[in-house]
Amino acid sequence: MKNNIGVIGLGVMGKNIALNMISKGYKVAGYNRSPEKVRDLNAQNIQGFDGHENIEEFIASLQTPRKVFLMVPAGNPVDLTINAILPLLEPNDIIMDGGNSFHEDTTRRAKELAEKNIHYFGVGVSGGEEGALLGPSIMPSGDAQAYTQIGPILESISAHKDNQPCCTYIGPEGSGHYVKMVHNGIEYADMQLLAETYLILKYAGGYTNQQISQILEEWQKTDVQSYLVEITSKVLKEKDPQTPNDLIDMIVDIAGNKGTGRWTSIEALKQEFNASLLTAAYHARIMSNQTTLRETFNETNTIPTEKLDLNTIFKAYSLSKTLAFAQGFGLYKDASEKFGWNLNLKEIASIFRAGCIIQAQLLQEIMQAYEDNAEELLLHPRFATKLTENKQALKETTIIGLKHEIALPLYTNALTFINQITNPHLGANIIQAQRDYFGAHTYQRTDNNEIEHHNWGETND
Amino acid sequence: MKNNIGVIGLGVMGKNIALNMISKGYKVAGYNRSPEKVRDLNAQNIQGFDGHENIEEFIASLQTPRKVFLMVPAGNPVDLTINAILPLLEPNDIIMDGGNSFHEDTTRRAKELAEKNIHYFGVGVSGGEEGALLGPSIMPSGDAQAYTQIGPILESISAHKDNQPCCTYIGPEGSGHYVKMVHNGIEYADMQLLAETYLILKYAGGYTNQQISQILEEWQKTDVQSYLVEITSKVLKEKDPQTPNDLIDMIVDIAGNKGTGRWTSIEALKQEFNASLLTAAYHARIMSNQTTLRETFNETNTIPTEKLDLNTIFKAYSLSKTLAFAQGFGLYKDASEKFGWNLNLKEIASIFRAGCIIQAQLLQEIMQAYEDNAEELLLHPRFATKLTENKQALKETTIIGLKHEIALPLYTNALTFINQITNPHLGANIIQAQRDYFGAHTYQRTDNNEIEHHNWGETND
Repeated sequence: MKNNIGVIGLGVMGKNIALNMISKGYKVAGYNRSPEKVRDLNAQNIQGFDGHENIEEFIASLQTPRKVFLMVPAGNPVDLTINAILPLLEPNDIIMDGGNSFHEDTTRRAKELAEKNIHYFGVGVSGGEEGALLGPSIMPSGDAQAYTQIGPILESISAHKDNQPCCTYIGPEGSGHYVKMVHNGIEYADMQLLAETYLILKYAGGYTNQQISQILEEWQKTDVQSYLVEITSKVLKEKDPQTPNDLIDMIVDIAGNKGTGRWTSIEALKQEFNASLLTAAYHARIMSNQTTLRETFNETNTIPTEKLDLNTIFKAYSLSKTLAFAQGFGLYKDASEKFGWNLNLKEIASIFRAGCIIQAQLLQEIMQAYEDNAEELLLHPRFATKLTENKQALKETTIIGLKHEIALPLYTNALTFINQITNPHLGANIIQAQRDYFGAHTYQRTDNNEIEHHNWGETND
Repeated sequence: MKNNIGVIGLGVMGKNIALNMISKGYKVAGYNRSPEKVRDLNAQNIQGFDGHENIEEFIASLQTPRKVFLMVPAGNPVDLTINAILPLLEPNDIIMDGGNSFHEDTTRRAKELAEKNIHYFGVGVSGGEEGALLGPSIMPSGDAQAYTQIGPILESISAHKDNQPCCTYIGPEGSGHYVKMVHNGIEYADMQLLAETYLILKYAGGYTNQQISQILEEWQKTDVQSYLVEITSKVLKEKDPQTPNDLIDMIVDIAGNKGTGRWTSIEALKQEFNASLLTAAYHARIMSNQTTLRETFNETNTIPTEKLDLNTIFKAYSLSKTLAFAQGFGLYKDASEKFGWNLNLKEIASIFRAGCIIQAQLLQEIMQAYEDNAEELLLHPRFATKLTENKQALKETTIIGLKHEIALPLYTNALTFINQITNPHLGANIIQAQRDYFGAHTYQRTDNNEIEHHNWGETND
């Protein structure tokens, strides 16, 4: 009997995806460019796994229409792999790219392969190594008709929530990879928000790591419950195996990134959409690497800690997190319209509820809002109320942090966003006047809506 | 006698550039796609202007090597114009694009035309309509050898400062348009900073428009002196010709943009460079257009005004403005290295001192810093001192503004930047721990610099 599906790229993610498929009863062929990984897996005699060192034999071992799942690094390796298998494929065969490919690359590949009658799917996968093995959140995009061929496999290996798979057909072209990209942008933002919450509690409030861990554990019982809150709580109580210290205190204060948060920020700007929280989270990671500036201006903070109202901090975090998700889902809505993808925002919220890094109770509320046909999340009564009720807490928390000279890129940008939609005066009248002064760009009048140009300075000078 | 140079595109900017060239003694041919503008100018019998309705005759009227200056809208019109004149040109002829073209387009065009032995220059021009006529700041890039042919003309029509032209050879390819683009990014930032300063003075301090105008007039006598401070001061004292009100109060609080600030933000992200102030200024313009959100959440501010220390506000503005320029010049340095442009940062600061929108006393200090071989502006003692001395004022000003619920995207991002380089704790240890938890991304230890991965949760759970 031939294999149901083939996986190319047997690194940790690819291997785990293959094992996940096998655990659901599928017969899986495996191929890897360097044969050692194939030999290692074959040596384990895993029932249902059929590793090949020869790519022709790998392809020949697959049922038609053939289903090939790529888990190779984004970029050129994807194109090289496609070129290697293309001569071996037949019309109606299906290639899936499970890596973090840039959505425009996926759209390009899908169009090129469609001309050869090969179906190409961009498949966003979130959940890390463990998710890949036990059930990730999966975001596949491509030809809707061909999805019926791969949907049952992808949905069976995905995480499940309330008996529903955390995998759904996203849309055409690179929409699946776009949705995964913005998922990561939201992830950057919530991670940074939790980091800032830790800074406020520790350096403005004087809480210990263990106490902060406890506070976050309490928060897990509320509507800010999420995987990231959970692991942050766990991270904070972890002891260093090598010293008597908390492990978190032994970790260098510099963060890396693999680019998807940066991509999200670029795409938002290309769409002329304000994703300020997501962008600030990426900027924060860059700034942590500015070692010359940081060492030059490094100051010891001598401001005494103060008593904090934990409920205020909680409400500030809850609102800021909501704004980060609202910016991310706002990007989806905007991209759906601009690119004609017809994204189902409720379904996207639904598949994020388990398996992925941003899984959170909040997604249930977001689903509900879209079920209520909310045009924009913040305009839905539930979120509008949260905004109004938590605004003051966000203001107070931010000011406390700034008094203690803590860098709060996310909290300040969240507060700026709130002030930008609540304060009727943004000073854009000044900017229009300046633009009209030096470039005759015109402005609109408040009294009669007329667009006019003024000869500035002539009446006064 | 043939014409020294030809201008294509006789809108306000193109016409003024042509008149500027004529005023310096050059004979200028003019062409415009729609002939009315040519006829209008010919009808004025301007000595030295030779308008043509026929493009062959226009090109034939030029001295060789021919010099053609395009002032047409960026994008497709530039390509169409190049294609229209290319068959009429000969090797060593020169095309200059004076519009706000995207620097990568300019690089592409320069490479394509180099194959045909045509020299292509991207020419950044700043100064608006008046600058074009009386002397703009000019940023030409292309073949260094060919620059000797056009340099004398461009330098003669540019603004001058201390008897030096505000025009210099920038570098190869699209570097001139890149420099102009970031100039506009800095411009967005300083405009927004002045708008926020106005908001603080007006809504936190209770100053009238006339008083704020006076304050800015005083600032013009200090080291924050600039064209933008000057026109903001003038804008604020302007009376509405149609009502008894100040004109600024009759202008709708919504700002437009023509894209260069957005481009700057995108390019910064592509370079992995933090230009947070420049990006926040673009975001602020988008947010002013979010009319549905603004109308929904619009609140009347009832917080009473308070007595402000004007010197504190001044120092906050001065430092934030310095940071905006430092981010812009940081982008130049980074782009110069990444693209191999060998930009002369001191020369760039020099040509911004007159003619352009961001002309400012500060540029003299920036020139001096680069003359002192500063690696980064903020590391130069002059700016490092300003940072340390004005930090507290920026903190106080920002907190006052936030207390009054004023949207301060620039001031908060400036303060965040300061806190990010002065506070040793950014919470990036939390982010690395989270990344290691869910993705095995590893972290570095503080005690022995080892890179390690930890099996999180196993010791505690």
